[in-house]
Amino acid sequence: MSFKHITSRDNPVFKQLKKLAESSRERRRLGQTLLDGPHLLRDYMAVFGTPRQLIIAEGQSTNEVNGLIQELADIPTLMVTTLMFAELSPVTTPTGILALVDTPQLPLPETLEFVLMLEDIQDPGNLGSMLRSAAAAGVQAVYLSEGCAEAWSPKALRGGQGAQFVLPVVERSDLLALTGNFPGETLATVMQGESLYEQDLRQPVAFLIGNEGAGLSLKLQAAASRKIHIPMQGQVESLNAAAATSICVFERLRQNLNQG
Amino acid sequence: MSFKHITSRDNPVFKQLKKLAESSRERRRLGQTLLDGPHLLRDYMAVFGTPRQLIIAEGQSTNEVNGLIQELADIPTLMVTTLMFAELSPVTTPTGILALVDTPQLPLPETLEFVLMLEDIQDPGNLGSMLRSAAAAGVQAVYLSEGCAEAWSPKALRGGQGAQFVLPVVERSDLLALTGNFPGETLATVMQGESLYEQDLRQPVAFLIGNEGAGLSLKLQAAASRKIHIPMQGQVESLNAAAATSICVFERLRQNLNQG
Repeated sequence: MSFKHITSRDNPVFKQLKKLAESSRERRRLGQTLLDGPHLLRDYMAVFGTPRQLIIAEGQSTNEVNGLIQELADIPTLMVTTLMFAELSPVTTPTGILALVDTPQLPLPETLEFVLMLEDIQDPGNLGSMLRSAAAAGVQAVYLSEGCAEAWSPKALRGGQGAQFVLPVVERSDLLALTGNFPGETLATVMQGESLYEQDLRQPVAFLIGNEGAGLSLKLQAAASRKIHIPMQGQVESLNAAAATSICVFERLRQNLNQG
Repeated sequence: MSFKHITSRDNPVFKQLKKLAESSRERRRLGQTLLDGPHLLRDYMAVFGTPRQLIIAEGQSTNEVNGLIQELADIPTLMVTTLMFAELSPVTTPTGILALVDTPQLPLPETLEFVLMLEDIQDPGNLGSMLRSAAAAGVQAVYLSEGCAEAWSPKALRGGQGAQFVLPVVERSDLLALTGNFPGETLATVMQGESLYEQDLRQPVAFLIGNEGAGLSLKLQAAASRKIHIPMQGQVESLNAAAATSICVFERLRQNLNQG
């Protein structure tokens, strides 16, 4: 096992990695992204096998990271300084290991009965958290509008905790067309509407969730088969978009558990 | 209406404000905090009246902010440069207005039937989001362990979207003692346990939620009357702590709606 050691920020390989870490356009262009930390890398490997390349920080020595490096001894590995590593990593406490991977493309199931559509979600951590809840609740596919944050950014990957590796995520989707064609209820979550808890969710369902501040566009609201809201009882009358998403998708899971 | 104009970062008033913006110790010492943006300030004013002081950015001109400045013409107001304002503000897109306020202390209801206990939640944005969901679901009080992030930091306030102004939050609580003394079910959310959906939540309930990575401490798990988990159906077997909190508190709300 031998590492290529890079200590200069001017090194073209490092510069290219930094571009990939920072630019969603670059990630799209190359169809590649960076995974940060041993957990995310293990989740990726469980589905897709080995990564293209490892990037490790000098002086890194946790057992977990060392184990991975040993296991992946055949994979090209770059060692960079701690400071350079920090420039590539989205987290404040560096994990010591990054992996360069091809952005996964999971096939869509033939029959879709549980779908999430996200319109213009801005915060990548929020988006990642939504994908994580969706994956845990058994959502089969998530469609993101053109204006959504990128699902493969380091922050969204961190928020998703591996969700992106098991749940098909379709970026830059035409949510209006998808809503029109969905063979089941399309439920627009809005501030006023029928109660979520009065919906029969034991059927094909697509939940439509809007932007954190502005909510769902009027166009999508009009295209949906129903407008629903989550009843609230406190003095605060709105929820974080990721919280609302979690409540909706887990209400469907709850109803389907009760059916069995 | 006249502003005190500060243009030097060495100005002692600015330095003091910066300390308050950055240091939870300083906020605790003074019993004061900073609110960022017109929405949060309006929410505060609806409950507690006028703030101690306004801090506005040079060249600020949204109608919403100008309206607030006019309304609060009697309140001491500092104007600082855009760059200095950015140093005080937690958001990347500056709102142009900050307010110095006394940290609210809301009285606890005499009878507590719906309580949330949070152990060592690290991420202030996550904490804020939990408080927001709790307030929306009708939780009556939230207790934070000593190791929790601070509820009054700029990031937690931003995540809470006003929740801290209507929901009593008790920091540095002894969760073990509170769990022992709570007159109702104390439900520890863990990875294995009874299903959340099989609990009868139409009674006094306290939900115990643990740290994002480590989960609830064994001590608190042992002290709780039951261990519960949120059933999952996907290939991802864990949830963001804020998502889990939202699902739990809204499941109680749902059950109580059904009762009526």
